[in-house]
Amino acid sequence: MVPSLPYLRPSLAQLGGYTANPGHSGAAIGPTDRVDQLDTNESPYDLPLALKEKLAWSYCHHLHSNRYPDGSHSELKTELAAYVQEALGSGETLGVEHLTVGNGSDELIRSLVIATCVGGAGSVWVAEPTFSMYGVIAETLGVSVQRGTRSPHTFALDLDAAQAALESPASPPLRLLFVVHPNSPTANALTETELDWLRQVPEEILVVIDEAYFEFSQTTVVAEALTRPNWIVLRTFSKGFRLAGHRVGYGVANPGLIAALERVRLPYNLPSFAQAAAIVALQHRQDLLGCLSELRQERSTLAQALGQLPPFQVYPSAANFLFLQLRPEAGSPDAGSPKAGSPKSAPGATLAHICQHMAQRGSLIRHTGGGLRITVGSPEENQRTVDRLQAVMASLTP
Amino acid sequence: MVPSLPYLRPSLAQLGGYTANPGHSGAAIGPTDRVDQLDTNESPYDLPLALKEKLAWSYCHHLHSNRYPDGSHSELKTELAAYVQEALGSGETLGVEHLTVGNGSDELIRSLVIATCVGGAGSVWVAEPTFSMYGVIAETLGVSVQRGTRSPHTFALDLDAAQAALESPASPPLRLLFVVHPNSPTANALTETELDWLRQVPEEILVVIDEAYFEFSQTTVVAEALTRPNWIVLRTFSKGFRLAGHRVGYGVANPGLIAALERVRLPYNLPSFAQAAAIVALQHRQDLLGCLSELRQERSTLAQALGQLPPFQVYPSAANFLFLQLRPEAGSPDAGSPKAGSPKSAPGATLAHICQHMAQRGSLIRHTGGGLRITVGSPEENQRTVDRLQAVMASLTP
Repeated sequence: MVPSLPYLRPSLAQLGGYTANPGHSGAAIGPTDRVDQLDTNESPYDLPLALKEKLAWSYCHHLHSNRYPDGSHSELKTELAAYVQEALGSGETLGVEHLTVGNGSDELIRSLVIATCVGGAGSVWVAEPTFSMYGVIAETLGVSVQRGTRSPHTFALDLDAAQAALESPASPPLRLLFVVHPNSPTANALTETELDWLRQVPEEILVVIDEAYFEFSQTTVVAEALTRPNWIVLRTFSKGFRLAGHRVGYGVANPGLIAALERVRLPYNLPSFAQAAAIVALQHRQDLLGCLSELRQERSTLAQALGQLPPFQVYPSAANFLFLQLRPEAGSPDAGSPKAGSPKSAPGATLAHICQHMAQRGSLIRHTGGGLRITVGSPEENQRTVDRLQAVMASLTP
Repeated sequence: MVPSLPYLRPSLAQLGGYTANPGHSGAAIGPTDRVDQLDTNESPYDLPLALKEKLAWSYCHHLHSNRYPDGSHSELKTELAAYVQEALGSGETLGVEHLTVGNGSDELIRSLVIATCVGGAGSVWVAEPTFSMYGVIAETLGVSVQRGTRSPHTFALDLDAAQAALESPASPPLRLLFVVHPNSPTANALTETELDWLRQVPEEILVVIDEAYFEFSQTTVVAEALTRPNWIVLRTFSKGFRLAGHRVGYGVANPGLIAALERVRLPYNLPSFAQAAAIVALQHRQDLLGCLSELRQERSTLAQALGQLPPFQVYPSAANFLFLQLRPEAGSPDAGSPKAGSPKSAPGATLAHICQHMAQRGSLIRHTGGGLRITVGSPEENQRTVDRLQAVMASLTP
């Protein structure tokens, strides 16, 4: 609870927060290792020990703890440019001037809201269910959030409603629009129809396409973001690159927008060791990303296994997680087919119940967006989780 | 240059930025090692190799790169509480509920502005010259900054003007007041008179006392901050603890204010390795802080040597740096005795010239606040810097 203190903004007390890794205590090896952490869409695999040792050696002999980090991220940006370039056609080139680096994508999201909306300059649009941090960060900065909806069947954006939001005069005006590609928690990538709609968003509205799961989806609009003055692509090292503990995200956009974001960010936003870790990960990307085809295969296996549990509908996924909903006939009345896209349609007690029981049995999964989001883990983690879900559902059936 | 793009806040183009470690490229060991970096108030000493190796081992065998950090900083806060407690009287106790941890103090400064001022809720007060990030961060968030002045002789706050600012109605109202204790770049600690004035600041204005240099000054108001609802003390691991590269800062205040700041911050703001480094530094604080008496001795030696260069007045210092100004009769007319406290009174070409020449000779020092700020380095760095300054001044004299 945020108390009322006379110097605080009154609206602060009403803010909803973001629940960081609920149920587990973070990075330390310890009791949490007995738990399968399939609730935050991390990679199930740490960096190989050889890479960690290389980084550790570099820390001991190449980095000065007592010196501020490189505030320009120059070496990291050079490596990053080469990586992002790989997804471009041969006619396009990308340089460090197209890149900005943040303390996780969270910091970049905050910078985007600051650059466009704070102080009554603009408002933000998101289509729920989606990554909750867009709304949380905007509201923390006193920026209002307009909430669109999605198809309850495919989770595609409701484009008629979205277009109406764009065209209706608002005060402050809409300035920033967030989509995830593929979306979290619903795992669907943007369709050509959705992308066409994003292409005609007026130039005074900045379109943020968050490709946090790009390494899994292998679908990207990064080439287009270079040529569109009001598009930016966000990426992260927290998922496919296995660096969630290091907090490195980046944005790709035209140099003008990048210059604005560089001006807004804190000068030493990224620790030296985080920069070093991202550089090493990029240099060894063949090794690190090699396991992604195995994870995609595991995703199919897991989807199939979960789909055989009668109460659940499992949706197609282009990411490293699966989204499940209770079928209408299943569970208690209030848990049936929650309408996606409306934050008010709480899926009720059943899903929360399932999550609690799963946690007690050792699998952390997420209850969000009117369904369950389960990260694709290692084969063993996935199998244990399927078994536990089966047992939990059996225990809940009278 | 921030270009004008239709979705950006128009005021962004006018923003002045912060110049991060000008003239050197950060943390990598390389050509910069031939340069004495006395411009960013870092410790001249890295962590001992044994501690770095301990951290490196812990990275390889105890931390999961692929897992998000502990978003509650619980182990770090527990260690921190024990450290901060040492400066308290026996009657006072301090717990994790009095602490918030940030990605450097910069992040905490930003959180403070967000919690009190954004969206037209308040404005910020600083007395120049002081740490420029307060103003930069506020203005980036669209928050206006009122600028007080200081005595041109002692750099103490001009309390009459400050009181007038407090009492004059402003829109938005004053909500946040920043002082550094001791101040940067002028190196003076708050006096009892200044502290008495801060004690009567009305409760609807939050007083931030930045003790970045506490480990050098050994003067703290942390005990008082626990009992005053509108005081917060900021500290950092970047100076005395030698961890500038890891980016860890913290705040000490009443639990209500701490709860508000925890709500405002990004959920995974501190990488796992940064948390581990701060924990190890705290556990070995006797070793790390042991060299501070040597640095204080070096500060005297350096001050004495610089004071023997006729053009300069060297001011007393309670921190790990010295502030120098050209005496009125010295240098070109525009360089003489710049009025401290007015950002308009640029000390002119001479000081900038001196800095450039010093950099060419291998000593980075800072031209700021109408004077030169020189970090106390190792004995060798200090000696070389004195020699170079002598040579530069000789070369500038016709």
